[in-house]
Amino acid sequence: MTGSASRIDGARLLADLRTLAEFGRVGTGVNRLSYSPEDVAARQWLCQRMRAAGLDARIDGLGSVYGRSPSARAILIGSHTDTVPKGGWLDGALGVLVGLEIARSRIASGEAGVDVISFVDEEGTFFSLLGSKSFCGKIQAGDLDQVQGRGGKSLRDAIAGAGFGGEFARVDRGRHLGYLEVHIEQGPRLESAGARIGIVTDIVGIRRFRVTVVGQADHAGTTPMALRRDAGAALIDLAQALLAGFPAYAAEGSVWNIGTIAFEPGAANVVPAAASMTVEFRDADLAVLRRMQAFLEHRVRVAGDRSGLPVTLESTAESDPVALDHHLMSVLADAATARGEHPVHLPSGAGHDAMIVGRVLPAALLFIPSIGGRSHDLAENTAEADIVLGAEVTAAAVDRLLSEP
Amino acid sequence: MTGSASRIDGARLLADLRTLAEFGRVGTGVNRLSYSPEDVAARQWLCQRMRAAGLDARIDGLGSVYGRSPSARAILIGSHTDTVPKGGWLDGALGVLVGLEIARSRIASGEAGVDVISFVDEEGTFFSLLGSKSFCGKIQAGDLDQVQGRGGKSLRDAIAGAGFGGEFARVDRGRHLGYLEVHIEQGPRLESAGARIGIVTDIVGIRRFRVTVVGQADHAGTTPMALRRDAGAALIDLAQALLAGFPAYAAEGSVWNIGTIAFEPGAANVVPAAASMTVEFRDADLAVLRRMQAFLEHRVRVAGDRSGLPVTLESTAESDPVALDHHLMSVLADAATARGEHPVHLPSGAGHDAMIVGRVLPAALLFIPSIGGRSHDLAENTAEADIVLGAEVTAAAVDRLLSEP
Repeated sequence: MTGSASRIDGARLLADLRTLAEFGRVGTGVNRLSYSPEDVAARQWLCQRMRAAGLDARIDGLGSVYGRSPSARAILIGSHTDTVPKGGWLDGALGVLVGLEIARSRIASGEAGVDVISFVDEEGTFFSLLGSKSFCGKIQAGDLDQVQGRGGKSLRDAIAGAGFGGEFARVDRGRHLGYLEVHIEQGPRLESAGARIGIVTDIVGIRRFRVTVVGQADHAGTTPMALRRDAGAALIDLAQALLAGFPAYAAEGSVWNIGTIAFEPGAANVVPAAASMTVEFRDADLAVLRRMQAFLEHRVRVAGDRSGLPVTLESTAESDPVALDHHLMSVLADAATARGEHPVHLPSGAGHDAMIVGRVLPAALLFIPSIGGRSHDLAENTAEADIVLGAEVTAAAVDRLLSEP
Repeated sequence: MTGSASRIDGARLLADLRTLAEFGRVGTGVNRLSYSPEDVAARQWLCQRMRAAGLDARIDGLGSVYGRSPSARAILIGSHTDTVPKGGWLDGALGVLVGLEIARSRIASGEAGVDVISFVDEEGTFFSLLGSKSFCGKIQAGDLDQVQGRGGKSLRDAIAGAGFGGEFARVDRGRHLGYLEVHIEQGPRLESAGARIGIVTDIVGIRRFRVTVVGQADHAGTTPMALRRDAGAALIDLAQALLAGFPAYAAEGSVWNIGTIAFEPGAANVVPAAASMTVEFRDADLAVLRRMQAFLEHRVRVAGDRSGLPVTLESTAESDPVALDHHLMSVLADAATARGEHPVHLPSGAGHDAMIVGRVLPAALLFIPSIGGRSHDLAENTAEADIVLGAEVTAAAVDRLLSEP
């Protein structure tokens, strides 16, 4: 690493991460759902911390915390500070505080050029990737009325309850040179490869569906098998056909999951009147996603024919794969190599704010290892040395990018 | 029907049924869970109604309402007045109020000989068949401490909250000549046969299990398929194998059901860390139940071997088939035939208090049709003429039984 303006203070970065992790701390992890009191307090702390670093910081009308560097152009670095229920202490917090540390160290050296952002509600307590979508102009104020959180509270009420108001922060293509995000891998690939730095090539596309079968509730003791309209049995048959069939339609890196399933009314002695499940799959290749979706649609039709029951398929989330910026990737890889690392190039199986910002700005995503591949879990963790290394590599890449003509 | 002491008042019976259905009424059905305020009020009303009929009635220490006839020996007639959530207006209430009407009409004619009972908590809000099990000496006061209801409230607290106390009503073999229960069929067989009276030959045995698979929660986007410990996929595979395999081990009248299923933590983007389901099956032949259970146990072992995950099988309910009393059956059938009916002999696929009492007293169970086979549902119903006919046939059978030497 060159003796640059961005020589960062690893101990200060770790101290900031530990302080932020106290907001909503649960054991070794954090429960900091968007717009909860803990989340709001964490945003206020972050905003103060940005100002102390010399950034022009404010909380925008949705809750994103945005700190602008005292310079005409800037690289934007960020992620999110909300968590899933009982999530990890790093996750999005890492990328925000790495950005803060780089901006702070540069400003202290008389060099600006780094804006920092914590996008609100990446985890979708109300609306997945809300802050980055708004930042990129994909959400308007009028859209808020249609959004309800998991507890039935409206997004507008949550925002008002948190005391947020005013303008929404927006991307400025005349100002923002690019977007960098540092994140834990949330998977086991770096650890199993013995690598400390991952350069993300693509963020996979996601297709997520709710499959519902409607049957009829009957007493499971008194209704002969031949007279039943068993929504549960039809759903199990479909689920098994999907799990058995996906490998033939998937690519090598594809993943799929049936993560929720429910029968109604849900009693041991009642034939299920309705049954539903979520089915999702991800791949970096749009053609693979389309092939898997065609198979799903085919099996849903077969399930309806076999059972004689209505089987419906509803898309609940859809994002196409996003390729990250090759120049930013190579600058990050060079910075890692200069530190003696052998960076691994890999796709990201998880969605990130970079997926949204990457459609409007050149964007890159750098991974550091997750111990045991754990994430979205109180046990999520990363070695402190890996955290500091990830920040240092990013800082070096920022130096290089800001020195380019 | 002979001009007997038991010529009952059908309009009065129907009026009583309609009055009882007001306790916890929900539209055309009833929500009267054991020990709820509605259930307690219904028991107090029933006790008063029994006393008005000339019975020596009281609510016992568990909540069963027991009315004794002014005679040394008696036929016991009853069922239960609790309901499942959003249950039907007849179900157990029918058998209790048929018993009351027969006892009342007999006493009014100067002839006693009929005791009436509403067994508490047949539906198992706290403990399935609680009242009849206690009545038959299968539950002791000390057992109550181990029982918790679905909401986590203890049975003892529920009983205390309802204000019940004192002795538990008990069967008296020196007094009770036999037990009769009238119930809606809760299935479609009488209706589809065009019959108005069913004579139950056996109550099927039930085997009910909880199957649980333990895996590991992982991010469903970032964890390669080969590294997952997916409890949900293993459970779906097992469930499908059971549903596909049961027909080969079952008898013609066997029934089986997977009525509940759940994945933990239950998010679309998280690989299930744990998965569970209930599996139950019923048959009137113990050998068939054993064969089906052996198949289930085999598939559970196969599921563990295939998935490499712990798969556990826990029995949550078990009852053996009960054959009902042949003499009582034939007296009921004769009474029906004397009315020009063609009674259908059939097994009961549902458990009933008669299943418990039938192990200590000669017992019989008479079915009347369920419209559309519906039960445990607000839509449950039976034609008024069928209700009255069922009561009249039972009254005639009581006359005959009490006239026997």
